[in-house]
Amino acid sequence: MPEAEEVFAYLRGLQGGICARLKEIDGGGAVFREDAWTRDDGAGGVSRVMEGGAAIEKAGVNLSRVSGGRLPPAASARRPELAGRAFEAMGVSVIVHPLNPYAPTSHLNVRFFVATDPAGVSDPAWWFGGGFDLTPFYGFEADARDWHGMARAACEPFGPALYPRFKKWCDEYFHLKHRGEARGIGGLFFDDFDEGGFDRAFAFMRSVGDHYMEAYGPILERRKDMPYGQRERDFQLYRRGRYVEFNLLYDRGTLFGLQSGGRVESILVSMPPKVRWRYDWRPEAGTPEARLYEEFLRPRDWAEGSLEA
Amino acid sequence: MPEAEEVFAYLRGLQGGICARLKEIDGGGAVFREDAWTRDDGAGGVSRVMEGGAAIEKAGVNLSRVSGGRLPPAASARRPELAGRAFEAMGVSVIVHPLNPYAPTSHLNVRFFVATDPAGVSDPAWWFGGGFDLTPFYGFEADARDWHGMARAACEPFGPALYPRFKKWCDEYFHLKHRGEARGIGGLFFDDFDEGGFDRAFAFMRSVGDHYMEAYGPILERRKDMPYGQRERDFQLYRRGRYVEFNLLYDRGTLFGLQSGGRVESILVSMPPKVRWRYDWRPEAGTPEARLYEEFLRPRDWAEGSLEA
Repeated sequence: MPEAEEVFAYLRGLQGGICARLKEIDGGGAVFREDAWTRDDGAGGVSRVMEGGAAIEKAGVNLSRVSGGRLPPAASARRPELAGRAFEAMGVSVIVHPLNPYAPTSHLNVRFFVATDPAGVSDPAWWFGGGFDLTPFYGFEADARDWHGMARAACEPFGPALYPRFKKWCDEYFHLKHRGEARGIGGLFFDDFDEGGFDRAFAFMRSVGDHYMEAYGPILERRKDMPYGQRERDFQLYRRGRYVEFNLLYDRGTLFGLQSGGRVESILVSMPPKVRWRYDWRPEAGTPEARLYEEFLRPRDWAEGSLEA
Repeated sequence: MPEAEEVFAYLRGLQGGICARLKEIDGGGAVFREDAWTRDDGAGGVSRVMEGGAAIEKAGVNLSRVSGGRLPPAASARRPELAGRAFEAMGVSVIVHPLNPYAPTSHLNVRFFVATDPAGVSDPAWWFGGGFDLTPFYGFEADARDWHGMARAACEPFGPALYPRFKKWCDEYFHLKHRGEARGIGGLFFDDFDEGGFDRAFAFMRSVGDHYMEAYGPILERRKDMPYGQRERDFQLYRRGRYVEFNLLYDRGTLFGLQSGGRVESILVSMPPKVRWRYDWRPEAGTPEARLYEEFLRPRDWAEGSLEA
């Protein structure tokens, strides 16, 4: 599928743009280390990782492109009939763990799949997937509204139905079932997306990719230098444990990557740099920490009116 | 099955004995917090957890007893024909995360299952499972030899075949497939054990339970006060990440517990108190940290001659 090169060129540019912007916001002189990797079967990618920045404790911005003889059933939930076809997949995954507990963790993924008919009879099937979501440690209504406002803006050129649909999907996906808890305040999640044909679907994926730093950049900038103490840092490290639990217990990309022999260090770059677990700990009522659970870790309509579309 | 009460009484005593011994070794005045819990369906347990001890950064010693209408297929790997039967399960699970990086993390589990025939025709099926394993951060040959010597001693009264068989099973089970790395230096792992009838099988399970602190106590005592610095602490926190990865990605008890609606805080008490992840980090050649990987995180015959049985 010739369009795959076009998508890959976009993804490469997206990776570069996000790294440049993160480095600029960090401002501390830390650089992205770059690791290009290839596997015998032709899979490969470029991982860019920053650790120990002034504002960013750890960030991973991964570009990867893999192909295989047999599409795993998990890769296309909507069309199980494609399982077993030869496929090509490419994507960009981003995770940012800021140092300041008032700055939220954020995550982006955009990906493109092509499944080819081994008999060569029907056209290849293709689809896009991805989204972005935000995980605050301390809740700020303004951040949540801006984040979801930008998520809605990313969807708006494609009609009013997409934002509420993909916002809901995101809430459902980033849910820690064993805790009955949302991972964060959500954002967008979509998969198996080919609606309206290639040009429109690709444009939508680009819109999601392009809106990510537009949404996250200003939030990171206004929180990264807020004064904080040990209490806030402890809570951040504690809450990061939930991120680990989600990624290792539920995240399809992580589990698929590890099971299919992907590059472990690129996949697990999503792990937070420092984490704490405390037995049966709960924040005291009335504290900002309790407020996170009560007011932010429950799905809410942050982009006013947008769910009525 | 009337013997279930006898097993439960042993497990309760084992929990108490382990807590008392750990408190004694810790010596810092920290106490075990006790949480008794029950669920609507009759499941229940007592979790005992110590945090912030002088020598023990976190320890969890859990007793639990659950029953259900349908035995999950995973619970008896050897006899899938029992899946779906009513069952009762009880066990003790122990995890100790010492503060000193020279002191290894250790883990014990002993459990008893009964599956009853709903038609009441055949006798109930029952079996024991469990084992103990050690996860050092810095390798000491003496510790590894003593640990496996005690594992062999636990098996010896039951014939020479058990130690090599359950030592091998332990090496296979506590393996991080995605890293191609052993979790630690192993020990014993057994399941579906009913060989020789109830009295012998129960005696074997008791022997494993009773040898755990006999094996771990002296090692913890001789390592807990060794001088160490930030470098050793950093490596300990980094290596603890592997423990998290194993437990959330592979550990059957953890996954079964979370999926079956067990008490989350009791199950995840196994999580280390503090953890670090560093991207693509590797110890420098020739360092004590590199030695751990080269000489200890590979299955070895630590109990001299015992594998020839």
